[in-house]
Amino acid sequence: MAVGLKPAAGLLPVKGIRLASTSAGIYARTREDLALVEFDESAAVSAVFTRNDFSAAPVIVARKHLMQYKGHRFCLINAGNANAGTGSKGVEDAMATCENLASLAGCKTEAVLPFSTGVIGQDLPVDKITSAFPYLMGNLTETNWNKCSQAIITTDTMTKGISKQIDLDGITVTVTGIAKGSGMIRPDMATMLAFIGTDASVDNKVLDKILNDVVTTSFNRICVDGDMSTNDACVLIATGKSGHKTISAPDSDNYHKLQDVVNEVCTHLATAIVRDGEGATKFICIQVEQGGNRQECLDIAYAIATSPLVKTAFFASDPNWGRILAAIGRAGVTDLNINNISMYINDCLIVEKGYRATEYTEESGKQAMKSDELLLRVVLDRGKHQETMWTCDLSHEYVRINAEYRS
Amino acid sequence: MAVGLKPAAGLLPVKGIRLASTSAGIYARTREDLALVEFDESAAVSAVFTRNDFSAAPVIVARKHLMQYKGHRFCLINAGNANAGTGSKGVEDAMATCENLASLAGCKTEAVLPFSTGVIGQDLPVDKITSAFPYLMGNLTETNWNKCSQAIITTDTMTKGISKQIDLDGITVTVTGIAKGSGMIRPDMATMLAFIGTDASVDNKVLDKILNDVVTTSFNRICVDGDMSTNDACVLIATGKSGHKTISAPDSDNYHKLQDVVNEVCTHLATAIVRDGEGATKFICIQVEQGGNRQECLDIAYAIATSPLVKTAFFASDPNWGRILAAIGRAGVTDLNINNISMYINDCLIVEKGYRATEYTEESGKQAMKSDELLLRVVLDRGKHQETMWTCDLSHEYVRINAEYRS
Repeated sequence: MAVGLKPAAGLLPVKGIRLASTSAGIYARTREDLALVEFDESAAVSAVFTRNDFSAAPVIVARKHLMQYKGHRFCLINAGNANAGTGSKGVEDAMATCENLASLAGCKTEAVLPFSTGVIGQDLPVDKITSAFPYLMGNLTETNWNKCSQAIITTDTMTKGISKQIDLDGITVTVTGIAKGSGMIRPDMATMLAFIGTDASVDNKVLDKILNDVVTTSFNRICVDGDMSTNDACVLIATGKSGHKTISAPDSDNYHKLQDVVNEVCTHLATAIVRDGEGATKFICIQVEQGGNRQECLDIAYAIATSPLVKTAFFASDPNWGRILAAIGRAGVTDLNINNISMYINDCLIVEKGYRATEYTEESGKQAMKSDELLLRVVLDRGKHQETMWTCDLSHEYVRINAEYRS
Repeated sequence: MAVGLKPAAGLLPVKGIRLASTSAGIYARTREDLALVEFDESAAVSAVFTRNDFSAAPVIVARKHLMQYKGHRFCLINAGNANAGTGSKGVEDAMATCENLASLAGCKTEAVLPFSTGVIGQDLPVDKITSAFPYLMGNLTETNWNKCSQAIITTDTMTKGISKQIDLDGITVTVTGIAKGSGMIRPDMATMLAFIGTDASVDNKVLDKILNDVVTTSFNRICVDGDMSTNDACVLIATGKSGHKTISAPDSDNYHKLQDVVNEVCTHLATAIVRDGEGATKFICIQVEQGGNRQECLDIAYAIATSPLVKTAFFASDPNWGRILAAIGRAGVTDLNINNISMYINDCLIVEKGYRATEYTEESGKQAMKSDELLLRVVLDRGKHQETMWTCDLSHEYVRINAEYRS
């Protein structure tokens, strides 16, 4: 049902990153549910996590390992169990998987970063996961990105991944990313995980800046239902194996080239999550223009993107522009004058100066809404700032999926 | 489909308030859609309105008339058309209805307070409304509260109203209120209107304080879908016709008695709106206890009440407590320690210290969730403050109603 999305295919290997996946039996039905990503301890690793106070155990452990240690070697990712709401036992379980893998691989426990996604409140099956380690360690290859993109999904209807290449100092540098997420940013079901690898050579602090900047305008600009995950994580690994001169400051041409391509990859993955949003039948890009500052553009975009009334109208292809104006009106923007606002859906001018546009007809609105990819432009006429957010509609199917999730 | 709600019945007259309603033909089908509430110019009148920047024309006009004038005589209420998103013409139209009524009644235009509810973006049928004024003026009686409760509803499945009486200085004082609202607080469809009358004698400033305090813990504590109306209004009229000594300061026994009974009436009307929430199959009282301050209790209650994942789980009677913890975790409360939180549904302890309670079983959770009236208690263990909010579930029917609203 994903809107305009095709499964991940043809993902390019990244020098210095090897992957493996298998079925560890975490799901009752047979499917791949455990993935291992291996890299050299010289790789730079950056990660951002959910800001939910109710963080899952693997988030707690991965954060700690990132803070306390340099020289990481593994990302260990399971689907089918979020290891969230599992208290101190959950943290012990996540630690146990790290210890067991480290013991087999001959590295420090802190060199392992654990990630989980799936149902909340059930204990992690540590033994099942540990039993799969010998197979995973014995089957690591650079060509397993596609396979791993399959192993990490949950309610996703298809895999998500992309590769891009750029030229840095005459050397081809690859960026490959995979993600899972069934359309909710901020959902409770361990919803969004993304792993992006590159053979670029980057100082870790510079890599941190790239990831933070890029996440701000990609993964932090999507919204399916406004709920926040307990397990969200996005990891960027730079192995430095391509051989160009290390990017050590955030100012060079190479820095900008790399940031741009990482941004392309993350934006693709982020929008893929929305396109595959639970029950989504439409993909909507909300562009708030001519704002007085960035935050007010974002506040308005977010108010629209989270409004159940707007989202059900999108589902029905109903150009109910009053609902959109009402969402804008409650966004909390200081001194907002609705009578300055114009609004377009695709090329159709619907609202002009706060009122139905003169040339607008219900029929032209319905026609514009029929497309399954919509650009909603809100022009505030207050300044020069602009922000973009992506969302999807709210359908019967969303209610069905989430009402029946555990049955 | 309203949960545990019966239509308004047996509403008591309030001395000094006369009402009438009729079918003005605003709806295509025949139904009452216009109501007039008349009172003496000596009555004290207080009102609160939507805080949406996109306020409907009648809200703009009623606010102005309240600010600029004392000695109001009428509330004029129509259903079927919100007169919102209608620009300056909408304001002119609302003013025209006030002028036409004032002209017939021989009072100032500012003595008329207009209210509208219905579809957004269509011009108000001023002529149809005005044509009904002679009938309305000729049929005002104190006994028409029930009839008017019918005339003001839109997608409501039943009328909402209640009467209460108290004794002040040996004199019986009546409070009668009616409301319309189909379950959304903050929705776009001119959703919530409430008119409460009493024959108590109260200074206008004291009446303002009573209304503001009471609205805070009643109408501002309900949430169906988190959207904010363009037309919300709540009006409290005190005619002073009962004959007790005027309440002129917010400190006497009589003041507290009156505030308590107005609070009872408003809480009944507010929860009636949730019970009749669009598509609602469950009525949920969220009680956040032992908070460090009131705001954090409210922030948590609101995060739970607006979470589509929590609301679909309620719809499915699925005790998916991880979703509730995830909503709590994203409420933005400073230094929140999830490991101190306990959670009950009715008498069933589900979460203890951030983790599934020892004695909790999936079966006991399902049993507790089966009821169509639920008390969700979240115990924060951070302090002495407590707040209550009311909400309903998110069902297939909600999506159907809002997807098909205009078709």
